Amino acid sequence: MRTVQKDEIQRVIIKREAKSYKGDFGRLFLIGGTYPYGGAIIMAALAAVHSGAGLVTVATDPDNLTALHSHLPEAMGFDLADQDLLREQIQKASVILVGPGLKESHENLAVLQMIFEQVSSQQVLILDGGAISLFSSSQFDLPEAQLVFTPHQKEWEKLSGLDLTSQTEERSQRAVQHFPKGTVVVEKGPHTRIWTSGTEEGYQLDVGGPYQATGGMGDTLAGMIAGFAGQFPQVSLYERVVVATYLHSAIAEDLSKEAYVVLPTSISKEIPRWMKKWSDFC
Amino acid sequence: MRTVQKDEIQRVIIKREAKSYKGDFGRLFLIGGTYPYGGAIIMAALAAVHSGAGLVTVATDPDNLTALHSHLPEAMGFDLADQDLLREQIQKASVILVGPGLKESHENLAVLQMIFEQVSSQQVLILDGGAISLFSSSQFDLPEAQLVFTPHQKEWEKLSGLDLTSQTEERSQRAVQHFPKGTVVVEKGPHTRIWTSGTEEGYQLDVGGPYQATGGMGDTLAGMIAGFAGQFPQVSLYERVVVATYLHSAIAEDLSKEAYVVLPTSISKEIPRWMKKWSDFC
Amino acid sequence: MRTVQKDEIQRVIIKREAKSYKGDFGRLFLIGGTYPYGGAIIMAALAAVHSGAGLVTVATDPDNLTALHSHLPEAMGFDLADQDLLREQIQKASVILVGPGLKESHENLAVLQMIFEQVSSQQVLILDGGAISLFSSSQFDLPEAQLVFTPHQKEWEKLSGLDLTSQTEERSQRAVQHFPKGTVVVEKGPHTRIWTSGTEEGYQLDVGGPYQATGGMGDTLAGMIAGFAGQFPQVSLYERVVVATYLHSAIAEDLSKEAYVVLPTSISKEIPRWMKKWSDFC
Amino acid sequence: MRTVQKDEIQRVIIKREAKSYKGDFGRLFLIGGTYPYGGAIIMAALAAVHSGAGLVTVATDPDNLTALHSHLPEAMGFDLADQDLLREQIQKASVILVGPGLKESHENLAVLQMIFEQVSSQQVLILDGGAISLFSSSQFDLPEAQLVFTPHQKEWEKLSGLDLTSQTEERSQRAVQHFPKGTVVVEKGPHTRIWTSGTEEGYQLDVGGPYQATGGMGDTLAGMIAGFAGQFPQVSLYERVVVATYLHSAIAEDLSKEAYVVLPTSISKEIPRWMKKWSDFC
Repeated sequence: MRTVQKDEIQRVIIKREAKSYKGDFGRLFLIGGTYPYGGAIIMAALAAVHSGAGLVTVATDPDNLTALHSHLPEAMGFDLADQDLLREQIQKASVILVGPGLKESHENLAVLQMIFEQVSSQQVLILDGGAISLFSSSQFDLPEAQLVFTPHQKEWEKLSGLDLTSQTEERSQRAVQHFPKGTVVVEKGPHTRIWTSGTEEGYQLDVGGPYQATGGMGDTLAGMIAGFAGQFPQVSLYERVVVATYLHSAIAEDLSKEAYVVLPTSISKEIPRWMKKWSDFC
Repeated sequence: MRTVQKDEIQRVIIKREAKSYKGDFGRLFLIGGTYPYGGAIIMAALAAVHSGAGLVTVATDPDNLTALHSHLPEAMGFDLADQDLLREQIQKASVILVGPGLKESHENLAVLQMIFEQVSSQQVLILDGGAISLFSSSQFDLPEAQLVFTPHQKEWEKLSGLDLTSQTEERSQRAVQHFPKGTVVVEKGPHTRIWTSGTEEGYQLDVGGPYQATGGMGDTLAGMIAGFAGQFPQVSLYERVVVATYLHSAIAEDLSKEAYVVLPTSISKEIPRWMKKWSDFC
Repeated sequence: MRTVQKDEIQRVIIKREAKSYKGDFGRLFLIGGTYPYGGAIIMAALAAVHSGAGLVTVATDPDNLTALHSHLPEAMGFDLADQDLLREQIQKASVILVGPGLKESHENLAVLQMIFEQVSSQQVLILDGGAISLFSSSQFDLPEAQLVFTPHQKEWEKLSGLDLTSQTEERSQRAVQHFPKGTVVVEKGPHTRIWTSGTEEGYQLDVGGPYQATGGMGDTLAGMIAGFAGQFPQVSLYERVVVATYLHSAIAEDLSKEAYVVLPTSISKEIPRWMKKWSDFC
Repeated sequence: MRTVQKDEIQRVIIKREAKSYKGDFGRLFLIGGTYPYGGAIIMAALAAVHSGAGLVTVATDPDNLTALHSHLPEAMGFDLADQDLLREQIQKASVILVGPGLKESHENLAVLQMIFEQVSSQQVLILDGGAISLFSSSQFDLPEAQLVFTPHQKEWEKLSGLDLTSQTEERSQRAVQHFPKGTVVVEKGPHTRIWTSGTEEGYQLDVGGPYQATGGMGDTLAGMIAGFAGQFPQVSLYERVVVATYLHSAIAEDLSKEAYVVLPTSISKEIPRWMKKWSDFC
């Protein structure tokens, strides 16, 4: 498998054009953080904003909005039960991330259904965490959007049908081909692999480590992927996801030089500095 | 157009007199942050307090007060629906900022109306965001206050009648002349211009850049303008607004040397250090 | 008037004994922060905890508890309307601070009355802000406690009967003598004076400056005074208050070398470092 | 008594295996923080997450969840009154910590009873603060779990029957032997001792000092012990607790070089750096 190379990162994280607007860097819509998992969508939002997203809106439990704003007044936030705002934001967004801290419930299945019905091929749709579980046990057809899945191993089992011991490189690669062409799959684990349907070769991370084995790491990754997906139209969605995933673990590796465990929120704070460093290499 | 010069900054940010009281540095009243935009008024308040405002009071949704105090116990905060406190604060304030995160609604139109009825020529009234939209679609006459508008391009379209492609230097300059003499307009964009009615020449920023293209940047600017408007009576309101706007982007530019995207809240934290630096040059 | 000398500070901030318990450093009870002034008691609590208080309990509006704990999980907090807890804490405390952000209302007058009825001569009772106003317009007799008042100029007018222009050194000194012997008065202003009844000479600060002229500065001072009052039994209450007041402005002065305005919460963060520095001189 | 030696620390805090999952580092379940002690469980959770716990879930008053997530989105949190979630988490957890900020009440006694009924010998059960008081005044038999008690002196009195003056080294050592074999007791005080039933010799800390005499110190220690208990299966539970307790005070001692009082939350922030340092010595 391939590993991410410097020049690939530099093709993605380019200098911004002088004359630009926040709309140019993605309108992100993040859905999740339902009780008792409120923190998950906060971590995703922190990662998205620090990745340079132009606008970030969060739909979550209303009880979760104060903690969201305590961390991040930069994000808008509303009650996930508000159907009108939900529909409006699904339509407005350039990138939809659904799943961090999303409980498996009838209500949330209906949310997923509404997204699948409303989303278009112009939009990036990222399914993470609870959204993968909900989708796997549903009969839904995948919508015509630019799809990204970010399963950990048990979620990959549900999604691909491959049990934990069968998740070899070859079988995962083949399973990915069943998704619509261009779909990106981030198969999370100690050695995360990033696949896209229609291409045989995938990427495997050569950065990151066990200091990342702590709750919230995946939520932060999902937020970074959403942040990158809303920017960098000069490269493919696959390349954006690959570089976001690489950077997430590269930052963790760097922080681990001084820390036995790396907290997800400390990764987010470092993103702007690292993106700057990479964009300067160009 | 003119660019801001060092000596202009130094005429504004002067050393404080030894014997002074918080009342000498402005009683600010900030209105906005209604659901789902609670973070906006928090960012404005952070900017105002860090700019040296003597007293900052916020009227917002009651659900937003805990997040406000989690960031900034220095600010007072109350429910925007409380008519008595609202009237009292409008009368007490030396500077009123209305609009960051203010939803367009009947209730908020009534708030704007009350402000317009109560405000006097001794007070600075800054209209931002939602307040500009509400005003533009209303039939209200402008009150006899020291007015500041901080429109982004679409809001400037509503306010001036100039569509996006017509917002040239010349036409914007002429449009500003329709406002009462002394009104200040901050025409926000990649190259922000600052005008005042009654003067032909305006300022154009030569600092700032695309690292600022992220949600909340304008709310932070509005808060800084309010902070400066409540201080520095030795110069005109126009000069105070010009320097606040300049400093906002100058700080962002400095932070961008180490950051791909500059978060609005990180600008606010840097304001006291920068104001100190400039006040020492005198 | 006297100014605070190094050796006076060193007599107060001494090294702690190796074998000690949190109970040895004060059981503080802080009352205030009622709507819309919630931030005030949070700032007082931050200052008290950072000053080394052993235990800090806050009674405030229940809506204010989340913001308190977001800043300071170290403090306990309960609903000011809870009569049983209120009575219990008044009896348990070694130091009671009442007033930061305390609204003038019938309910809060009743709170003050309960304190006055319950407090004993073993306890320090600090009246600040709203508690001074409530007391001044009440007919209450002062209780037999170790009293501290921390009025700003308008509150001193209410308390002493001296209008703003009459608050000269001589008249203030004489007015203080009307309070029970040993009562400490911190007369806040650009040149804060600290008096005690029964002694002619007072202290005047020669540190601090106009960078402190911002909302919350007095709440932070009140919290520091409470923190010091609960410790340092080797010196008089007067000396503890004098040194707390001095340190508050000395820290602000130091921070002002790098900041045009010094936020109250940034003073609190510096207290442990400064106290350490002073205790090492011994 | 023994003091903790470098090589003992190094046997505990070992390098993590490259291929590991968050489940490998403990599923912690923390119970406490009931009104008015909400901050206590927040401090315990901060300590647990910073100690490297894989997953941390908190059951507390629902009013406390926003402050928890404002500090720590990494933790999950739910309403302690939710019986189903409570039962589920008790069964799932590898480590249960009950007691920081847990009020003595009928409801909480019932919570303790449920834990005692559900817990198994595979699980570590840590009783702290309110849980020790509740247990001491109950008729409950101790469950077949790997038990840890973290009493301060008054709680040790309740638990052992030894009044404060009788808590000598010898008597405490003998009292510990009444607990089931392998039970760990952290006898907190100016010179904290750590015992285990079945072994005669205990440890006494030679680090730490009076800068730790402030509210929340014990909650932070309990969280660290829980964090360590969920990791490091290569050593006994006793060794994990000993090293967590040592590290807690060693960090405080280091911070005290620059601080007169060391806040519990500042200890937590330093844990990852210290654990890294120790793991590198191996």
